[in-house]
Amino acid sequence: MSANAVNSTELEAEILDAPCCVPAQGDNVLQAEEAEQLAARFKALSDPNRLRILSIVAANDSEETCVCDLPEPLGLKQPTVSHHLKILVDAGILHREKRGVWAYFSLVPGALESLSSTLVTPKK
Amino acid sequence: MSANAVNSTELEAEILDAPCCVPAQGDNVLQAEEAEQLAARFKALSDPNRLRILSIVAANDSEETCVCDLPEPLGLKQPTVSHHLKILVDAGILHREKRGVWAYFSLVPGALESLSSTLVTPKK
Repeated sequence: MSANAVNSTELEAEILDAPCCVPAQGDNVLQAEEAEQLAARFKALSDPNRLRILSIVAANDSEETCVCDLPEPLGLKQPTVSHHLKILVDAGILHREKRGVWAYFSLVPGALESLSSTLVTPKK
Repeated sequence: MSANAVNSTELEAEILDAPCCVPAQGDNVLQAEEAEQLAARFKALSDPNRLRILSIVAANDSEETCVCDLPEPLGLKQPTVSHHLKILVDAGILHREKRGVWAYFSLVPGALESLSSTLVTPKK
């Protein structure tokens, strides 16, 4: 646990024991539906193996990446790679195209850039 | 399930039934330790209520945000807000400072920008 760890009970006691001291800021809150959609995409990124898969596909952005090319550099078995690829495709981050016997993966244009921009809020 | 959904067994069959067709790309893969650290931060962002908390704190970036100011705009009870704040602090995304009876939260400088930059890989 980090040095910044906070005890929830302590915070709850704080809110109960003192009057509110700062004006409400509800105007700026992200709406629930948009928050749900963003959270689902961040959840797809919350696994180290999926981030490693993305690093290979992103580095190979000028061409698609064959599914056959992923198990070896990742040190993973094919079923595990396929599981993670499915999550990234379902989240709208990777595009899958089957040609012949192989499936090829590429970044959905703008998907990562869009997520990236949500993390950097323009300062007032 | 989306139209792009992929059957893992189908992909596994593909890899077993055909020879590899693309050169290995292991040089570009994100290393395991860095992937673990990044995944932990994305996991902290993978909850809609935490994203909504961040949207308020980020919009109020010139000042700290009092814990007392969060339950109302979010429509959440204080213990739930405190639980999510603890996760964001432990992930190194929010800074917590206690002054008097209240705790105040602010973005850790550069934390979201750093995560944002990992999503946008420079093109070759």
